Amino acid sequence: MKKFISVKDTEDPKGLVKKAIDIKKDPFSNPIGKNKTMGLVFFNPSLRTRMSTQKAAMNLGMNVINMNIDKDGWKIEFNDGAVMDGDSQEHIKDAVKVMSQYVDILGVRTFPGLKDRNADYNEEVISNFIKYSDVPVVSLESATRHPLQSLADLVTIEEIGIKKPKVVLSWAPHPRILPQAVPNSFAEWVKVTDADLTIACPEGYELADEFMAGANVSYNQEEAFKDADIIYAKNWSSYHHYGEKPEVKEDWRITSEKMSLTNNGKFMHCLPIRRNVIATDEVIDNSMIYKEAKNREYAAQAVLQEILENL
Amino acid sequence: MKKFISVKDTEDPKGLVKKAIDIKKDPFSNPIGKNKTMGLVFFNPSLRTRMSTQKAAMNLGMNVINMNIDKDGWKIEFNDGAVMDGDSQEHIKDAVKVMSQYVDILGVRTFPGLKDRNADYNEEVISNFIKYSDVPVVSLESATRHPLQSLADLVTIEEIGIKKPKVVLSWAPHPRILPQAVPNSFAEWVKVTDADLTIACPEGYELADEFMAGANVSYNQEEAFKDADIIYAKNWSSYHHYGEKPEVKEDWRITSEKMSLTNNGKFMHCLPIRRNVIATDEVIDNSMIYKEAKNREYAAQAVLQEILENL
Amino acid sequence: MKKFISVKDTEDPKGLVKKAIDIKKDPFSNPIGKNKTMGLVFFNPSLRTRMSTQKAAMNLGMNVINMNIDKDGWKIEFNDGAVMDGDSQEHIKDAVKVMSQYVDILGVRTFPGLKDRNADYNEEVISNFIKYSDVPVVSLESATRHPLQSLADLVTIEEIGIKKPKVVLSWAPHPRILPQAVPNSFAEWVKVTDADLTIACPEGYELADEFMAGANVSYNQEEAFKDADIIYAKNWSSYHHYGEKPEVKEDWRITSEKMSLTNNGKFMHCLPIRRNVIATDEVIDNSMIYKEAKNREYAAQAVLQEILENL
Repeated sequence: MKKFISVKDTEDPKGLVKKAIDIKKDPFSNPIGKNKTMGLVFFNPSLRTRMSTQKAAMNLGMNVINMNIDKDGWKIEFNDGAVMDGDSQEHIKDAVKVMSQYVDILGVRTFPGLKDRNADYNEEVISNFIKYSDVPVVSLESATRHPLQSLADLVTIEEIGIKKPKVVLSWAPHPRILPQAVPNSFAEWVKVTDADLTIACPEGYELADEFMAGANVSYNQEEAFKDADIIYAKNWSSYHHYGEKPEVKEDWRITSEKMSLTNNGKFMHCLPIRRNVIATDEVIDNSMIYKEAKNREYAAQAVLQEILENL
Repeated sequence: MKKFISVKDTEDPKGLVKKAIDIKKDPFSNPIGKNKTMGLVFFNPSLRTRMSTQKAAMNLGMNVINMNIDKDGWKIEFNDGAVMDGDSQEHIKDAVKVMSQYVDILGVRTFPGLKDRNADYNEEVISNFIKYSDVPVVSLESATRHPLQSLADLVTIEEIGIKKPKVVLSWAPHPRILPQAVPNSFAEWVKVTDADLTIACPEGYELADEFMAGANVSYNQEEAFKDADIIYAKNWSSYHHYGEKPEVKEDWRITSEKMSLTNNGKFMHCLPIRRNVIATDEVIDNSMIYKEAKNREYAAQAVLQEILENL
Repeated sequence: MKKFISVKDTEDPKGLVKKAIDIKKDPFSNPIGKNKTMGLVFFNPSLRTRMSTQKAAMNLGMNVINMNIDKDGWKIEFNDGAVMDGDSQEHIKDAVKVMSQYVDILGVRTFPGLKDRNADYNEEVISNFIKYSDVPVVSLESATRHPLQSLADLVTIEEIGIKKPKVVLSWAPHPRILPQAVPNSFAEWVKVTDADLTIACPEGYELADEFMAGANVSYNQEEAFKDADIIYAKNWSSYHHYGEKPEVKEDWRITSEKMSLTNNGKFMHCLPIRRNVIATDEVIDNSMIYKEAKNREYAAQAVLQEILENL
């Protein structure tokens, strides 16, 4: 793997899930990262990703360099050919090339602007990392995808152990305008498994066609929940009315009553979660959320190990 | 030890002092921390604690993950049952549980709000860490105590080597409203030694009863200094008029003249110190402050080693 | 070396260049830094220096502690004898002494204020580090010099491999008021080599006499470029009109046309670079900038190794 941004970057996503499960049994058995350095570049806040990826790298014996580029570095220019006489201090091509020279793998965290759909879906930031980096680039969440989260979620689903599970990706309420990265990514990863995927969301909240394709769609949350084995909750803002949050009249908050419609379904969420907004405390406290978070470590370790094995 | 918040968390505080002194002789002799990770979570600024605890962990062979949760992570909700539709992005129970899954020991730094005495003295933040963490929690200073500082201070006093020393914990002036964590903690740790403790402070600045108990109290600084072997200076705001700074008419700044009343007494302070406000340059420049700071490393190492030995 | 601030701190600067070139061939061959700790203290932003110095330290087996003292620590007082009843929370002498006790080498990054020339050229911050540190101090760029950059630049020039090259340090435009640290430092380092140095700048932009001495000066950029082997571009503000940016009427931006006046000259710059302001994209994209940045790692490693060998 030269990059790990979307499910398409791995030839064998199921093999990667298996690798993570194997690593979990004995995380310190492969010091393949000795004298190798992981660079973690943050344009945006991060807790799970920051900690789990560091931990994964260190489990492999790697050194880690963190770079809070938004706080500790320089203001970055993204336009090619720009006459840089304004605020921005360093061009993305120079920053990426230089950072990549000091590390063996470069991770980058970047959120979408949620103003210009083309810019976001062209993955302006991480595309430049891929273009200019001398070393493999790993997404620590990008404008449109969060593959380490999705891989961890697949590990969690594999551990639940249901054959051909009915998985419902359900929209849920949130006070802010959020990216589509997690649901996009979850959809594309689940679709490489044997699961049956339903995306339940209010009208106007459909994901981009690329991510909807191959999934059932439902605009009725309660109907979608029937017989579900897994409820994967997440808020996202509208793709079709980009950067907007069209009014939703129905109550999409996930409650125990709604969960009782499922086939003893498990509740999943990537965290951070707005308690009693996305779902009630009761639902969250009886969920897979901490298992998912713990699996972030092994998902990251599987990806880093795979990359190191092919350097 | 499952937690290290107050002196009560260790069965043998004197043994811990001895352990720190032993470690100081050869800090690299025990790589018990191999493949173990120390997580350091900061809600507030820190210099000595941040550096000395990292150093201590690395001396033991541990990896270290720093998390500036106030800057790099999410805004944290502390109220149970909260409907999180406002500013806060992640509940403390979820944040702690998740962070604890990536590390073997979790350190946390958190200051009191100094508005609501009950909330502060209930140790709202660190109590949640203890409640939700899967791994032992070490205080890097909490709302009401600073045990790694106090342990380092006991190491320093032990090194001074006076039998049954007269120790005076003296209030001193400061332009701001400060926590009681350091004096509270110093008092409860000194009381497990053979020292005779006097707390000298202006009226209205007594610590909570729990910390005053067993100590002499004096409202006359010069009288208190007589025959003292150790002057431990610190400012704190009023416990009884919580969050306030009642006017003090006498001059409590510590000078060489005042130090000359002592029994050739040693001046101690936890740092950072406001020079020529808490004490004069002359007093500070002839003090134990750097020894105390250096002992922070070995105090932290003793605590981490003790925890690792009992994992 | 007890300090590494200016070229005068090394007895054998050419030997240090050679050492860096040797290290580059096999950066992991000398684990002399085992159980040693590098402390990196930042008063100002940094990307290359932060990452390359960490990498260098880790290549030698050192542990690294980063301290963003402007963000994570306390506000620092620099005046001796100050009555610290204002904003500043810790005196530089205490902060430095304490930090130095936790590490084996202390690096510090600090920019000039560009208001008070005396204060800047007395190196107020780094002088205090040298004065109070218990361990060797390495400049990660100070008010008036950037020696790790200059050493990396000499490595790059050595790799270019021209005997007695004509080196032109050329002023170039920039929208802000910048320090003289990089050009000062470059000048003093190049002068210990066999290169012929010309400093080309607008009138009023001459460096301090100490740095101009031994170099040719030219106020005509195109004339200076003739027969040059190396063009080292950099903006700096006026030393003689300190903290000011006297108007420059000629166009000092470096273009391919100007480069064609040289002897097939190589373009160098320390980065970050304002593209199409300092020089055009075309010039920058055919330059040595990434080689220079990569050599930062080996320059830092040579300095740290030299210090560790003499601890």
